[in-house]
Amino acid sequence: MIRVAAALSLAVLAAPAFAGPLPSWNDGESKAAILDFIGASADPDAEGYVPPEDRIAAFDNDGTLWAEQPVYFQFLFALDRARALAAADPDWANTPTLAAAAAGDVEAVLAGGEHALLEIVTATHSGMPVEVFIGLVAEWFASARHPTTGKPITEMVYQPMLELLDHLRAHDYEIYIVSGGGADFMRAFAEEVYGVPPQNVIGSQGEVRFEIVDGVAEVVKDPGIAFIDDKGGKPVGISRHVGKRPVFVAGNSDGDLAMAQWAAAGEGPRFVLFVHHTDAEREWAYDRESMIGRLDAALDAAAAEGWTVIDMARDWARVWPE
Amino acid sequence: MIRVAAALSLAVLAAPAFAGPLPSWNDGESKAAILDFIGASADPDAEGYVPPEDRIAAFDNDGTLWAEQPVYFQFLFALDRARALAAADPDWANTPTLAAAAAGDVEAVLAGGEHALLEIVTATHSGMPVEVFIGLVAEWFASARHPTTGKPITEMVYQPMLELLDHLRAHDYEIYIVSGGGADFMRAFAEEVYGVPPQNVIGSQGEVRFEIVDGVAEVVKDPGIAFIDDKGGKPVGISRHVGKRPVFVAGNSDGDLAMAQWAAAGEGPRFVLFVHHTDAEREWAYDRESMIGRLDAALDAAAAEGWTVIDMARDWARVWPE
Repeated sequence: MIRVAAALSLAVLAAPAFAGPLPSWNDGESKAAILDFIGASADPDAEGYVPPEDRIAAFDNDGTLWAEQPVYFQFLFALDRARALAAADPDWANTPTLAAAAAGDVEAVLAGGEHALLEIVTATHSGMPVEVFIGLVAEWFASARHPTTGKPITEMVYQPMLELLDHLRAHDYEIYIVSGGGADFMRAFAEEVYGVPPQNVIGSQGEVRFEIVDGVAEVVKDPGIAFIDDKGGKPVGISRHVGKRPVFVAGNSDGDLAMAQWAAAGEGPRFVLFVHHTDAEREWAYDRESMIGRLDAALDAAAAEGWTVIDMARDWARVWPE
Repeated sequence: MIRVAAALSLAVLAAPAFAGPLPSWNDGESKAAILDFIGASADPDAEGYVPPEDRIAAFDNDGTLWAEQPVYFQFLFALDRARALAAADPDWANTPTLAAAAAGDVEAVLAGGEHALLEIVTATHSGMPVEVFIGLVAEWFASARHPTTGKPITEMVYQPMLELLDHLRAHDYEIYIVSGGGADFMRAFAEEVYGVPPQNVIGSQGEVRFEIVDGVAEVVKDPGIAFIDDKGGKPVGISRHVGKRPVFVAGNSDGDLAMAQWAAAGEGPRFVLFVHHTDAEREWAYDRESMIGRLDAALDAAAAEGWTVIDMARDWARVWPE
């Protein structure tokens, strides 16, 4: 009841008076396909009807709901936290990778590849109860700014996608975020920014352990990665968490291809959407050659399967919230 | 909306005309404590008020929502499946443990301890897409009978607990099952029997993998156990899945103690309930010495912490649904 009410109020806020649904989307094939699918799925007399309990939607986060350039925002958090930890304890940055992170030397860190990233995530995302970590991330979001636009990080979200989330909720869809980003990291902002509560966030997982700390029961974040929610991990994460295939999925990179294939292979109506970053002027333009958010195999698959590919420059009248 | 409507209709079915809430509970301290807590948690003017987004309830399954004697019902499924697999392929039961399982020799299997159980679960719960497995379990439930009462397995649930679930839902609680049983196994019946949808089932997890099988994308169950949702695994499972501590938890064994401690240590009002099996006449009587559902350390903790312990013989006017 509460969640429905919240969804309705968000929808009202997002839609200017007299505007139709998805006001920040330009009229065209993409918008029409989305509206047709969602409308039919909620219409018991339509061929494309989907029973309410099966109206599961899964959205990638980085590059699909908010920007991911020039680097994933969680990486910015890790660098800021590395700097803070090194400032508090000069012995903290005791490896070249951690020293580069503490110095904010993005290129040096990226040159270290996945091993360096893992080292930094481990050192900056563990050693405290989950709830303390979520609090640290929330605190960071309160002041963090995007390195090139200067906007608050939480405003680097796509207005058209916020409207799509509202439109789905207004048609009784249950929305999950399914991201390679850390679940605990995303839980610090997903409810406020997207209206997606913590229990609807599926993401990568660090190792955790139950422990009585000074007489208080805690779930504590340990070093190490327990689960990577990317590529084949996305259908696995959804299967474990939701227990059924989504009927509506949205992604923007090859990391979302397995999720798209798995959703599309289910029985009955399915909708697969990929965001193609074609807008260097208002956002960024990148696809097959990008190190971040590479869209290559999935772009071919979308063409072959007839999935909806959003051309950001063409399909979105507006990219960012006011 | 749909979920609320379903909850309301369940509540109506469960409550005879003119009866108050929890009609199958005898009046007394336990019932009063439950009603007081839930009522206050939904009353903005009460000291015990809990905001709706924090009204998370976690229920153990075996021994808390349904019976667990003489053995866990999932074990009965595994034995039936072992018999079917051995009948279809005489070479299937190629180890003493699998042969014992296929012969339904419970004692021989239990004598093999955890290793034997793991071997049987691995052999009977893997090698197919998750959805096929859930279908097999649902098929089994359609005809499975309890070995001593002869009732359908799905009627071995506790009527007072069904009423408690309804009462919580009527006060906008989100209910999760948090069980050592397999998540995929429970998803085959939790919605029908408890009104708990698949995405609100947290349980033990087998290994799974994404795979394109004959051109179709599938999540396939592999041999091996990925996660045991018992003892310290329960708070870990809830933290990963829900992202916050429950305010209301119910269990019946030492396997639920960590979950109870973790929930109780959260800020604000909390309610911890343990079912004590004291009713040899209508159900079973067991606690500190039982191999299944041992309630020993948690019984001491409940007394020390002032948690509510349900004395089944005293507190429940009725045990089973009509």
